[in-house]
Amino acid sequence: MHFNPSIVIKISGKFFDEDGSRNISSLRDVVKNLSSSFRVAIVSGGGSNARKYISMGRDLNLSESYLDLLGIWASRLNANLIAFALGDIAYPVVPDSLEDFIEKWSSGKVVVTGGFQPGQSTAAVAALVAEATNSSTLIVATNVDGVYDKDPKVYKDAVMLKELTINKLKEILENSQSVKAGTYELLDPMAMKIIQRSRIKVIVMNYRYISSLSDLIKDNKNIGSTVIPE
Amino acid sequence: MHFNPSIVIKISGKFFDEDGSRNISSLRDVVKNLSSSFRVAIVSGGGSNARKYISMGRDLNLSESYLDLLGIWASRLNANLIAFALGDIAYPVVPDSLEDFIEKWSSGKVVVTGGFQPGQSTAAVAALVAEATNSSTLIVATNVDGVYDKDPKVYKDAVMLKELTINKLKEILENSQSVKAGTYELLDPMAMKIIQRSRIKVIVMNYRYISSLSDLIKDNKNIGSTVIPE
Amino acid sequence: MHFNPSIVIKISGKFFDEDGSRNISSLRDVVKNLSSSFRVAIVSGGGSNARKYISMGRDLNLSESYLDLLGIWASRLNANLIAFALGDIAYPVVPDSLEDFIEKWSSGKVVVTGGFQPGQSTAAVAALVAEATNSSTLIVATNVDGVYDKDPKVYKDAVMLKELTINKLKEILENSQSVKAGTYELLDPMAMKIIQRSRIKVIVMNYRYISSLSDLIKDNKNIGSTVIPE
Amino acid sequence: MHFNPSIVIKISGKFFDEDGSRNISSLRDVVKNLSSSFRVAIVSGGGSNARKYISMGRDLNLSESYLDLLGIWASRLNANLIAFALGDIAYPVVPDSLEDFIEKWSSGKVVVTGGFQPGQSTAAVAALVAEATNSSTLIVATNVDGVYDKDPKVYKDAVMLKELTINKLKEILENSQSVKAGTYELLDPMAMKIIQRSRIKVIVMNYRYISSLSDLIKDNKNIGSTVIPE
Amino acid sequence: MHFNPSIVIKISGKFFDEDGSRNISSLRDVVKNLSSSFRVAIVSGGGSNARKYISMGRDLNLSESYLDLLGIWASRLNANLIAFALGDIAYPVVPDSLEDFIEKWSSGKVVVTGGFQPGQSTAAVAALVAEATNSSTLIVATNVDGVYDKDPKVYKDAVMLKELTINKLKEILENSQSVKAGTYELLDPMAMKIIQRSRIKVIVMNYRYISSLSDLIKDNKNIGSTVIPE
Amino acid sequence: MHFNPSIVIKISGKFFDEDGSRNISSLRDVVKNLSSSFRVAIVSGGGSNARKYISMGRDLNLSESYLDLLGIWASRLNANLIAFALGDIAYPVVPDSLEDFIEKWSSGKVVVTGGFQPGQSTAAVAALVAEATNSSTLIVATNVDGVYDKDPKVYKDAVMLKELTINKLKEILENSQSVKAGTYELLDPMAMKIIQRSRIKVIVMNYRYISSLSDLIKDNKNIGSTVIPE
Repeated sequence: MHFNPSIVIKISGKFFDEDGSRNISSLRDVVKNLSSSFRVAIVSGGGSNARKYISMGRDLNLSESYLDLLGIWASRLNANLIAFALGDIAYPVVPDSLEDFIEKWSSGKVVVTGGFQPGQSTAAVAALVAEATNSSTLIVATNVDGVYDKDPKVYKDAVMLKELTINKLKEILENSQSVKAGTYELLDPMAMKIIQRSRIKVIVMNYRYISSLSDLIKDNKNIGSTVIPE
Repeated sequence: MHFNPSIVIKISGKFFDEDGSRNISSLRDVVKNLSSSFRVAIVSGGGSNARKYISMGRDLNLSESYLDLLGIWASRLNANLIAFALGDIAYPVVPDSLEDFIEKWSSGKVVVTGGFQPGQSTAAVAALVAEATNSSTLIVATNVDGVYDKDPKVYKDAVMLKELTINKLKEILENSQSVKAGTYELLDPMAMKIIQRSRIKVIVMNYRYISSLSDLIKDNKNIGSTVIPE
Repeated sequence: MHFNPSIVIKISGKFFDEDGSRNISSLRDVVKNLSSSFRVAIVSGGGSNARKYISMGRDLNLSESYLDLLGIWASRLNANLIAFALGDIAYPVVPDSLEDFIEKWSSGKVVVTGGFQPGQSTAAVAALVAEATNSSTLIVATNVDGVYDKDPKVYKDAVMLKELTINKLKEILENSQSVKAGTYELLDPMAMKIIQRSRIKVIVMNYRYISSLSDLIKDNKNIGSTVIPE
Repeated sequence: MHFNPSIVIKISGKFFDEDGSRNISSLRDVVKNLSSSFRVAIVSGGGSNARKYISMGRDLNLSESYLDLLGIWASRLNANLIAFALGDIAYPVVPDSLEDFIEKWSSGKVVVTGGFQPGQSTAAVAALVAEATNSSTLIVATNVDGVYDKDPKVYKDAVMLKELTINKLKEILENSQSVKAGTYELLDPMAMKIIQRSRIKVIVMNYRYISSLSDLIKDNKNIGSTVIPE
Repeated sequence: MHFNPSIVIKISGKFFDEDGSRNISSLRDVVKNLSSSFRVAIVSGGGSNARKYISMGRDLNLSESYLDLLGIWASRLNANLIAFALGDIAYPVVPDSLEDFIEKWSSGKVVVTGGFQPGQSTAAVAALVAEATNSSTLIVATNVDGVYDKDPKVYKDAVMLKELTINKLKEILENSQSVKAGTYELLDPMAMKIIQRSRIKVIVMNYRYISSLSDLIKDNKNIGSTVIPE
Repeated sequence: MHFNPSIVIKISGKFFDEDGSRNISSLRDVVKNLSSSFRVAIVSGGGSNARKYISMGRDLNLSESYLDLLGIWASRLNANLIAFALGDIAYPVVPDSLEDFIEKWSSGKVVVTGGFQPGQSTAAVAALVAEATNSSTLIVATNVDGVYDKDPKVYKDAVMLKELTINKLKEILENSQSVKAGTYELLDPMAMKIIQRSRIKVIVMNYRYISSLSDLIKDNKNIGSTVIPE
């Protein structure tokens, strides 16, 4: 028996907020292409829908855990939409924990997840999923082109880094208030810890280039920033 | 042992689209008040969020069943928000079928549900829930004041009916193209069938008056239209 | 990856009441034959066993929803028996909702279901299953040979219709009190709605000819009545 | 906090085969009466319905485990009917294992079960349930009046024993081919083992006297045979 | 479609107590080898960990059923470790009942289980699993070399039996107090009953020779004692 | 309706390793006493049993996520033992995620949990549980008397701090390599984040004084170190 190597794709919630169906359509094409030579797991963020429900929940004085759960369920709605769009190659039910993910992953299908638990980002979910599937690479598709040495919106001379170590990334995140929230979400402390302990390579890229993902993975095409788990 | 009588409140998805948290806050006050003398079940629609996901799914060529499921999951997100807002008096998990509802209902708590199944409206869900809980009354809180003999947006002389039989309602719905979609959703064929076979009284009211619901139920205050299951 | 087209077979509960094991044995042979070129879903009715439990429940004053649930559980017992008879080609657990069906269906196996929910017939279940599996054809195996223009037990000159539109069928069912209950169950309003919105072809046939089902499907052999979703 | 003592009632499947709804109605009255001072668990057999499905399964060459499962599901249908008949005092879902029973039992409601697992009788289920609920007494309601020293259908001089030790019962069961199957089912080896290790008293009685059960339990009224776990 | 024959391997809990990871590593090699031509199910005992928790539970006055459950959960921890060690060829979740086993078994993967239910040994679980999978052989890997005619620790002239009937085994177990507990656990009354009714051959062997298991099964190599279900 | 305030008790896994049943017995007495005026949640660590299985898993080259899962399951075994020891006042099933915890917590019973997810400590679980239950206090019962300004095993002049801010605690943990692992586990980064965002007071105490817990909570008795979420 031969088993394909695994890869994890983390999709920002913003992916669904504008041109959602077109974005998903591109993702579908890429994943169908990839799934002949890779096992693919997808982790979806919550986006504006998550923020809307969290905001209503905050008005109603819910605890932080409950607000996080509203965001998690919104992210699962996004995950469900991707799973349905993928059709027969995807597992049609979204897991609600890593244990549940592991069971569904054993089906051999693409598995799409949203959030797992309050107190952590979907980036941490993606790191957990990458670790549990023995994936050597985690793709983070978000709305920035990569990781910059400074906030590109503040500093004209900010430079996108083609490659950086995870410790360099930590330093950038800690030393700079102005770093983009979106980038920070990419790797919260739990995500960092998991990426380091299991030495997972992270590639941060803009989801506008999602249709190039297959080239990126198969041919090592040069897109976004690569974070090395030194 | 004494058991309180049961009542079912169907909330239109539009309830969440504008002033959502204020609407839910009013609902919370009413349900807390009611729950000392009634067992309360709440059924929530999907609203604009459901339509957004259904629209994306349609762009992606999903089957009608899958589109309905996206709408159902959106309605469950609304139901979850209500359940959390109600706090300890509510069951904190939203059921996904009538069988599941019956189990959660046995907890003695308020149970909040969204949709159950493709191919039926949340009005049908509300009718099923009313039947399973032996409720004699189903409140339908929507964005119209009641049932009109003609479409009030088209006919200046349209009259809101304080009371009508279910057969009269059928007649209005069948003979008029121009009846509001919102009103029609109120009672799809499955909802009609269940309401008739179990003789459930339906009160259609505007959710703007939700804070009067307690008066309506306890003191028979005159709000909306009453549909008699003759 | 290639995926076989799907087909749904609805089995009347009467199938189990007389010569049950012989009928199931024939069904097993047909499904084993079909499953090399089709994905097969089977929906089973409740039969006399459902009626027995519903009758006891009615004596005990249970609500209509609870009576329906007794019938649903009886139909699931029938479905379990079929699933076990099919052995390794079938999923060995009977789903209890469409969402559950979709998950089990993703296994690639034959999935056998009974009823899903109170307030609807197993014909509606079959229509939902056909829609969710993108099946273009739904076979209804019952104890009549097909759809007649009039009740054949009342009118000597009743004619079985080889082909009819779904609107013609509605007309027959609505204009005639005397139409057979068995035929009516075939297409309750929810089943009609789903068949129409997803344009599913329905073939009504006698389960006595179940062993010809493979010929019917593969070679378009002329059996029963075909209802066209015009 | 005060907790009522627990009691377990095992109902023979024959209970449902003739005058089923009247029998259940009597049981309902007794259990409602008992449930003010006892926590009550009920275990139901499968009866003729179980035998019908097992027979069909045997015609279809299913393995013994699968045949047992068909019988278990039939017994659960009986259990469901009892649970529904009891209404709000009963947990509305039938557990499918002892672990599941323990969870549902924690609700404080009457819990009704059918079979748990292939390879054991529902008497063994009843013994497990009695042990897990710390019940000192297990009532076995069947279609004989009690335990006889010899088969009363064969020997005119057979005597019903008001009281006997469990070892005496074993002796009767082992030394006599002609002992009634119904009596044997009462205590298969697993049931015996559990009753002995947890010192549970067993009362064998005719379900025709079910309406006297409350007197039997509360006032020690003299019915049936008592098996002492010496 | 071709389906491989099935085989069940029962692993004593002692397997994990000393050189656990080395033992599991050997088992992994054997099962990987076997799984190209057999479907494999594995049943694991609880070992010293089970005894530790049962002992604490007994100090705390838990009922026998609850003590058994602690042992069952300990055995499931062992089963989980085996399942994880096997990687992609195994189902990654341990079933908790025979019904659950049957569902997971339908995945086509190796399924690893611990205990199912209080009141029975993991040997009974293994017999049930063998019956449900239509396995003709059940391997019992324990810490003795096979079945002896007398207790080898007491009698110098005890002889290991290469082959014996199940009735001979019963006789040995019943007539001798001094038979090893480990051997007795091998076949408690429920296990015996199932093995007999479904005519399953049992091979008792020392788990020290686990790496020869593949030879034993494929080439009929002469290891341990064979119990014939005559 | 009145609802008691909630409190969370985190029990170190070492609690079970020596005098386990005596420790649990003391905990049982305290929780029974507390549960008349508080809702109590308990979170249990994994202890030596977790380390044993993690070590075997590491020998077998399992991924970090899978090793964490083995530890989580070991902690759940501890949690199960506590839940069973508590009897009727506790929910008899251990939840496996925060969502599951919330559902079980709605039963009104004491709920006992082990770990939830790989990548986080059971301290993070305890913080999540405290947040979700709106508990203002989290008790951490471990094998040290409290938080010291330096490692007491290295520095003779180490002083136990009666009260410190969470930022002071962070500083101690970061600036000192020699801080005890046990103390660090107390508050991993996720736990810190949750404690801060929801302003939960943490009391670190030695589980040897568990029988004084009731005094501590009700009378503010002076035990251990209090960490203020400033």
